[in-house]
Amino acid sequence: MRAAGYRFSALTVRYGQRHVCELEAARAVAKALGVARHVEIDVDLSVFGGSSLTSAAPVPKDRPLDTSEIPSTYVPARNPVFLSLALGWAEVLSARDIVIGVNALDYSGYPDCRPEFVVAFERLAALATAKGVQGTGFRIHAPLMQLGKADIIRKGLALGVDYGITHSCYDPGPDGRPCGRCDSCVLRAAGFAQANVSDPVLSR
Amino acid sequence: MRAAGYRFSALTVRYGQRHVCELEAARAVAKALGVARHVEIDVDLSVFGGSSLTSAAPVPKDRPLDTSEIPSTYVPARNPVFLSLALGWAEVLSARDIVIGVNALDYSGYPDCRPEFVVAFERLAALATAKGVQGTGFRIHAPLMQLGKADIIRKGLALGVDYGITHSCYDPGPDGRPCGRCDSCVLRAAGFAQANVSDPVLSR
Repeated sequence: MRAAGYRFSALTVRYGQRHVCELEAARAVAKALGVARHVEIDVDLSVFGGSSLTSAAPVPKDRPLDTSEIPSTYVPARNPVFLSLALGWAEVLSARDIVIGVNALDYSGYPDCRPEFVVAFERLAALATAKGVQGTGFRIHAPLMQLGKADIIRKGLALGVDYGITHSCYDPGPDGRPCGRCDSCVLRAAGFAQANVSDPVLSR
Repeated sequence: MRAAGYRFSALTVRYGQRHVCELEAARAVAKALGVARHVEIDVDLSVFGGSSLTSAAPVPKDRPLDTSEIPSTYVPARNPVFLSLALGWAEVLSARDIVIGVNALDYSGYPDCRPEFVVAFERLAALATAKGVQGTGFRIHAPLMQLGKADIIRKGLALGVDYGITHSCYDPGPDGRPCGRCDSCVLRAAGFAQANVSDPVLSR
């Protein structure tokens, strides 16, 4: 979005995730990208339970990823909550564009990471808001939706992303180091391997 | 829903509203209704601003209600956030039905209180969730949607609601007493007057 000339702000949600260290990474990334504003908001989805990301239930490790099963790391309605929060802020900012980094291609286990979901949310946004009623509406962008993980790595590198300040692991150690075995680590490693690049996070 | 035989739970959101005393009323109502569980969740929408309900901006008083203008008490994307949170919990509970008390008839200033919004959210819920993917989906009920305020009062009384424990005012005094002049107080008063009933909250 920056390369496309947008002025943009960043929203990070502390939702009770066990990998809350991703918030530090989000701050570093937002700073490196030169966002207009970075807002952090708290909404403790762990009160509902139902996910290994927001409870003491174990995060699956060394799992085959070519399954259609929805994994225990699925957090019910997380992306509806995230996009609804972004929608509220976008309306206040008079922003027309909302961007979310969901990806359906490598891993379609999360129902709220699919194109149908994004299209349905765009429709909802048009009906739920003052800007929708006034006819301008919102666009929900998901630029990573159809990219493989290797393509995401390559595209980021081409755009100057410093992957050394990013975080993906669902179940990091107390020092924030990735576990290397959760779905998120396995997918990230496959992406770097396929792109033939070493992951700077692993040599920190 | 209770009269229809549902077992049900209640969700209350502390979203930075100035009339946070409504949470006490929500607790009393949930208890009186005999809910299975009552969860309160915090999400501070005041970080986004944009509403007189979540900021120091004055709540409009003695306002004509027959306008199509969206009032400053509109909280951008509040009902998308509320329903998304309810959806997450419903999925965890394996509940199929979600109920929201929006009302479009007397007062259509809020875009996220309209039937189109509820229909769009139901569609979103089917696409965003594990239950949606598995084909069972969710129903969003809005039983008050098409009722006038007087009909709501009458229906509640017929069902045994104790209006003395409820709260509507946007801008109550420090003792929780209704201001009598905000949109919410004016509509409530009109409803009780048309139903020819006195409001027990005013004689507390």
